[in-house]
Amino acid sequence: MKTPEVAENSVNLAKSLANVRVVLSHTTHPGNIGAAARAMKTMGLEQLYLINPRIFPDAQADAMASSAVDVLHKAVVCSTLDEALQGVVLVAGMSARVRDISQEVLTPRAAMPLLAEQAAQHPVALLFGTEMSGLTNDELARCQVMVRIPVSPSYTSLNLAAAVQLISYELRLAAGLGEYAKPSLNPAPAEQVERFFIHLEQALNEIEFLHSKQPTKLMHKLRRLYARARLEQEEINILRGILTLSTEYHGKLKKEANK
Amino acid sequence: MKTPEVAENSVNLAKSLANVRVVLSHTTHPGNIGAAARAMKTMGLEQLYLINPRIFPDAQADAMASSAVDVLHKAVVCSTLDEALQGVVLVAGMSARVRDISQEVLTPRAAMPLLAEQAAQHPVALLFGTEMSGLTNDELARCQVMVRIPVSPSYTSLNLAAAVQLISYELRLAAGLGEYAKPSLNPAPAEQVERFFIHLEQALNEIEFLHSKQPTKLMHKLRRLYARARLEQEEINILRGILTLSTEYHGKLKKEANK
Repeated sequence: MKTPEVAENSVNLAKSLANVRVVLSHTTHPGNIGAAARAMKTMGLEQLYLINPRIFPDAQADAMASSAVDVLHKAVVCSTLDEALQGVVLVAGMSARVRDISQEVLTPRAAMPLLAEQAAQHPVALLFGTEMSGLTNDELARCQVMVRIPVSPSYTSLNLAAAVQLISYELRLAAGLGEYAKPSLNPAPAEQVERFFIHLEQALNEIEFLHSKQPTKLMHKLRRLYARARLEQEEINILRGILTLSTEYHGKLKKEANK
Repeated sequence: MKTPEVAENSVNLAKSLANVRVVLSHTTHPGNIGAAARAMKTMGLEQLYLINPRIFPDAQADAMASSAVDVLHKAVVCSTLDEALQGVVLVAGMSARVRDISQEVLTPRAAMPLLAEQAAQHPVALLFGTEMSGLTNDELARCQVMVRIPVSPSYTSLNLAAAVQLISYELRLAAGLGEYAKPSLNPAPAEQVERFFIHLEQALNEIEFLHSKQPTKLMHKLRRLYARARLEQEEINILRGILTLSTEYHGKLKKEANK
């Protein structure tokens, strides 16, 4: 059950992703545009703006977009940066390189919360330059926030669509939509876990495993193992079933031996 | 200057990425193998294991790998999962779907620190299933950690190489290698900022801008603006230079008028 506040918050978060434009400037390869559309859609972004793409629309773009062709088909093709940024209150530019320009550069993780915050109310833009040379100095000058993805210094050649994927992912997390309803662990209550350990110790005594060892030390080790696993009730039931049958068998053998 | 502790830590972190295997099981499209190699290398991962790839080696794989072909060329092709996991102490499986299997599923952000911690000393593996159906139940059973990338519920079709990109990125961050030497902001000390505000107020008085307004309120607004910008010394010098020239011109005009 959601409280009204949480419900309202979810609406705002969904709205915040709807306010995000991905702007690709002068993209060379249509395949990258398609792959970027797919990357965006997996993270809930749908507004694609293309400034003078070299080839678009294109069959290769469609192929790479897979089932995200709808994002491609509603993409806005612009001839100027002004057109693409119309109405946008915050522009984050992706920069692959360290430049002369003395501008503060943030990590995606530091920057995307700023974008998500503004996007809750106003359009914001993520601006990506061309594959070969990134953003021009004129484009950089229009960005209030500069973002650089941390890459390996020995190989910095991040694909354009891969960059869109990473940034869209960070934005989704920043918008608070990174959690999912998970089939999470359902650990058993302490008393059930304790009953298992008592049963285990009894069983290990019965099969005479503990006799030859240091019982306390060994039980501690077994406790440590099962503590780490955080036992669920069903697992305790299975393990205790195994213990019961193990000792039953052992008991029968003992009886036979004592006949 | 690095302290010895920091230097040692960096060595461990670099070593930890060298201990990470990306294992792709029964990959269908060679292009995805190439793109995955490129994705890995941008994040500093180089150990690629391929279990029964449908087509490999292949020209399309090489093309998509771009300058990461070295990762492809030293990839280890295996015929079984056992072979690919030889020596590995922790296996994280990527799962796209919610399954019957009641296993705890972590976000990449929660899971990668566990991998990075083990990788500091031992080989670990990131296991990715086929493009169409993901990991088999037998493969899932070999994973100690299940990871699901949070995707939009309305479009979950994340490309294999894009998934490798996101997980490699999170692992790089978890290994503490997500920061870069950035040309960071170098904010001016408080007294310099204060001298600028005094100069600004004087200048605004001199050009008779403040006379007609509410001076205190206006100065507060200007302070707020420049506080947000976190002025650097060089910027203060530029702004004060502008103020000096503005008032000089104004002063000359006044003199002329009073002649």
